[in-house]
Amino acid sequence: MTKYKVAFSGGTTVEAQPQATLKEVMNTAGINFDFPCGGRGRCGKCKIRIVSGANAPQSEEKRLLTEEELKAGIRLACITKVTNDMEVEFLSDKNIAHRILLSSLNRTAKIEPHIVKRYLEVDKATIYDLRTGWQRIKDQLAAQGEQYKNTKARVTVLRQIPEVLQSSDHKITAVLYNDEVRGLETGNTTEKLLGMAFDIGTTTIAGYLMDLYTGKELSVASTLNPQTQFGADVISRITHANQDPKGLRDLHHVVTRAVNDLIGEAVQKAGVTRNDVYAVSIVGNTCMHHLFVGINPRDVALAPYVPVVTDPLVIEPAELNLQINPAGKVFVLPNIAGFVGADTVGVLLATGLDQSEEIKLVVDIGTNGEMALGNKDKILACSTAAGPAFEGAQISCGMRGATGAIDHVTFDDDFSFSVIDDVAPLGICGSALLDTVAGLLEVGLIDERGRFKKPEEVTHPLGRKLKDRLVEINGSPAFLLAGELNSKENRPIYVSQKDVRELQLAKGAIATGIRILMQNYGLTVDDITEVQLAGAFGNYLNPHSACAIGLIPKELENRITMIGNAAGLGSQLALLSHSEYERAAKAARNVQFVELGSDPDFTTVFAESMLFPQQEE
Amino acid sequence: MTKYKVAFSGGTTVEAQPQATLKEVMNTAGINFDFPCGGRGRCGKCKIRIVSGANAPQSEEKRLLTEEELKAGIRLACITKVTNDMEVEFLSDKNIAHRILLSSLNRTAKIEPHIVKRYLEVDKATIYDLRTGWQRIKDQLAAQGEQYKNTKARVTVLRQIPEVLQSSDHKITAVLYNDEVRGLETGNTTEKLLGMAFDIGTTTIAGYLMDLYTGKELSVASTLNPQTQFGADVISRITHANQDPKGLRDLHHVVTRAVNDLIGEAVQKAGVTRNDVYAVSIVGNTCMHHLFVGINPRDVALAPYVPVVTDPLVIEPAELNLQINPAGKVFVLPNIAGFVGADTVGVLLATGLDQSEEIKLVVDIGTNGEMALGNKDKILACSTAAGPAFEGAQISCGMRGATGAIDHVTFDDDFSFSVIDDVAPLGICGSALLDTVAGLLEVGLIDERGRFKKPEEVTHPLGRKLKDRLVEINGSPAFLLAGELNSKENRPIYVSQKDVRELQLAKGAIATGIRILMQNYGLTVDDITEVQLAGAFGNYLNPHSACAIGLIPKELENRITMIGNAAGLGSQLALLSHSEYERAAKAARNVQFVELGSDPDFTTVFAESMLFPQQEE
Repeated sequence: MTKYKVAFSGGTTVEAQPQATLKEVMNTAGINFDFPCGGRGRCGKCKIRIVSGANAPQSEEKRLLTEEELKAGIRLACITKVTNDMEVEFLSDKNIAHRILLSSLNRTAKIEPHIVKRYLEVDKATIYDLRTGWQRIKDQLAAQGEQYKNTKARVTVLRQIPEVLQSSDHKITAVLYNDEVRGLETGNTTEKLLGMAFDIGTTTIAGYLMDLYTGKELSVASTLNPQTQFGADVISRITHANQDPKGLRDLHHVVTRAVNDLIGEAVQKAGVTRNDVYAVSIVGNTCMHHLFVGINPRDVALAPYVPVVTDPLVIEPAELNLQINPAGKVFVLPNIAGFVGADTVGVLLATGLDQSEEIKLVVDIGTNGEMALGNKDKILACSTAAGPAFEGAQISCGMRGATGAIDHVTFDDDFSFSVIDDVAPLGICGSALLDTVAGLLEVGLIDERGRFKKPEEVTHPLGRKLKDRLVEINGSPAFLLAGELNSKENRPIYVSQKDVRELQLAKGAIATGIRILMQNYGLTVDDITEVQLAGAFGNYLNPHSACAIGLIPKELENRITMIGNAAGLGSQLALLSHSEYERAAKAARNVQFVELGSDPDFTTVFAESMLFPQQEE
Repeated sequence: MTKYKVAFSGGTTVEAQPQATLKEVMNTAGINFDFPCGGRGRCGKCKIRIVSGANAPQSEEKRLLTEEELKAGIRLACITKVTNDMEVEFLSDKNIAHRILLSSLNRTAKIEPHIVKRYLEVDKATIYDLRTGWQRIKDQLAAQGEQYKNTKARVTVLRQIPEVLQSSDHKITAVLYNDEVRGLETGNTTEKLLGMAFDIGTTTIAGYLMDLYTGKELSVASTLNPQTQFGADVISRITHANQDPKGLRDLHHVVTRAVNDLIGEAVQKAGVTRNDVYAVSIVGNTCMHHLFVGINPRDVALAPYVPVVTDPLVIEPAELNLQINPAGKVFVLPNIAGFVGADTVGVLLATGLDQSEEIKLVVDIGTNGEMALGNKDKILACSTAAGPAFEGAQISCGMRGATGAIDHVTFDDDFSFSVIDDVAPLGICGSALLDTVAGLLEVGLIDERGRFKKPEEVTHPLGRKLKDRLVEINGSPAFLLAGELNSKENRPIYVSQKDVRELQLAKGAIATGIRILMQNYGLTVDDITEVQLAGAFGNYLNPHSACAIGLIPKELENRITMIGNAAGLGSQLALLSHSEYERAAKAARNVQFVELGSDPDFTTVFAESMLFPQQEE
């Protein structure tokens, strides 16, 4: 039998059997078009325009469409039959699937929400039609697509049926997750479908309220992780969870309460309600993951540092006391290992490393530095305890990257620096520490072991020019960035010998991870086409400084890209697209975790990585 | 390749590939044998005896079995290979599936509990085995059988993992429902697996505590349905549910609380705890079903009398506030229609009507009379509002079948009766009302229209002899069973003209149902091989009397069997066997409901059925 060609606006062209309806053709073509009445020619909502090849209108179309519409080629996709080649135009993209664009990462993803809404006009019971209320809902759903052929529901949903059907004159909206009807709403509520993507950091929790149809970010809310009151780092929180009888419960409750508060703040900013939120996605390191879910993370702190669970988890909001629409679900991304968590999976998802042809290195720099190396065929990942130096913590004049922080330092003809918000400096943040030490190395004020040179040892011209800034503070050498008269609080701002040691440790840890991953993979720097730096700190550092101190191999300096909070972007992707979420699960399973401590070369490599690179004179 | 024959005690013989293990052979043969360590030759618990064809013992067997055992042919089924024809004997039936015998119904069923326990010796994490706790549990389960290849768990179970593994030295018991791990217990708890089968009647709730391995009934508990406080019958309760704002909640709460109380009573009687109960099964009429589940049964009371749901429901105990082991599940049998509920499905299950070659009629007599007619190919069912006469309610001297009730009446050479517990009579119960009216008809004291004859109209010899018992009470004729001097409370016990009318209505309703079912089926009485009477009343009535008044066609008198509380037995079967539960679902879907009121012949048939059969002189 001859087949006809049907070309849809947007670029899809398929072959169709004669007499097939456009509904059937779209289904075959994988076009996710909305048929509110189930494709029975009753609601008149599946309008499309036949650009060429239109048939005479059918009686339903004459009834439901205006004279003008009919003339313009508008028809109903559910009943229009293919009788020749056709060009079909979608009138709005509202009822077809959207795509999201992550411009910072130069990639797109199809929007496919986990939670779906279907508008149903449910038949009423008569003495000739004794189907139960639930059966009539199921049958109406089945008419909307193969995937709804065997829907099921929990008793909480069955309990809604009598009231919802009666009060809505049998016009309802079903909320679905896969083949489960999760809730029933009166009337057509398909317009509202929001979700919230979270990135639960050890220090900060950030939440993004998203429109699950358009992928648009409606508002953002963030807060300090209130678990900080029980300890600043992962290990102290695990200790609290196991030493205090209420410890685990407390840690779980404060984080879920914070998430609830952020949802409240975000929906208020956007002028919507909690009840409009049907999905929540979560990334975080393995400890944050376990505490959020309510699992004791004890084993993560004990050798061999094994999580309780790495699988992706789909959880009932009630099981976490999350106050969103009870028909919704919570999607927690998978972990990889005890110290390579769902946040790293979020980074992988955002960067698309698991789909990359070329070999890339992704480093998420924070208190722990997680890194992954590879491409679609093989990915190795590891974690290093970098310590807090990159975040400006435990540094003599260290501070976060906030107003008053020296954020960049230049050793050019002379020495200069910039301050966030252009005020008198208060302290230095991680990126400036990096710049300073890189500069001191380049002008020969510190040697490759990290030792401040004596003034008489300095030979570099700029170094000699800056000699006066070499001072002694508390009996140790230091480099003065700003004297007390030039600083906001009349205290000198400097980098001490101890600060240099802290940075050495931090950069040594990450450099060790990179080198051991490369060794395990059997790669050289030449094989790596791109280095992607993620994390708040990773977004501000100067690639040249990073290479000058040996944080990143210097051969890679021109291949460094800053990608921002990639974990949070990964959380958004997983929220907006179930395919991306499933990809995350697959990627997490396929990543090979490298336990650095077990590597026979670890001690040697770490000792070497602590040194700074030798400077060219 | 030659195959070998392996014959198992119990009668199963299968062909096996050479070198197959007995574990693999049993799996193929569908023998559900227990391999606690997953079949790795480690625990030594899968002992069987090789009666003939034994091989030399392997090293694991030498280590785990005694000299005597080895000599006696004892081997481990997990590692024993088939190298020739073999006869294999099971040493105890503890680890193979049991069968239950319902002697009253002459049928057996295989015991296959919904909830299953598996003992697991879980590997510990090492630096060479970094699998998560959950993964190690899943892998150990997967080793126990194909069906556990992809187990999943809710977050409540994942939360148990660290504590359970640690406190049990990694020896745990997993509680499973299909592929879902529902709970984890420390040590080997496989011995304890109980369930409770319920029959929720409009008037009485009965619960049976059962051992889910042996099918043994451990204890029984019953109580008046506390919903009675809101109305004696189904319709008044539906009214309460919809007129009082708290009505539905009250009705739901009192019945679930009563079920909780009965569980408490039953476990106490049996010396076990609520936590040992992992499954609950429920039958009841459609209204009781909806109220127990928490669904408004309003539509059941409004034409066209459609339930909200008829599907079988598997519910979380927490969703019903049932206090059993939280790893358990509640199994609610399906309904058929608004007035043919899960109790009728229980009766069908117990009688096996859906598997019967021969055509049978099953009648469950209560306030409503539900009946089903057919065989494995086709079953028709209907419901009739018989009213409370059969239960002794709304009858002048009526009472329940308790101490002091006249329960049987004989019109032989003379008139005589028996009283429950042989005391002075207090009143009459349903079966005696039936006997009395049947006798009065046979001796010509009432006519076929139900009218008491005048003394002068009586011609039958025994009738004439009993003429003096025809008295006038409150201005109406009545038949005196016991004078005031002979009764316990010094009040005459009699059957009035009004009582006869009530019985006529009740038997007319049921006879109408039987006749319309036969008409719809296209059957005559000759096609019906057996009439099974279920229900408390159905168990006591005299088949001769039932036929004499025309409740049951008189041609069927010798084909009547009393089957007791078949709904309760059906509930037990559904509790003990998931196959039986699934059969119930299939049977319920296939039964064709006949709405008597819509039948064009209904009025005529009902008018005719109100008459009593003509008596042979």
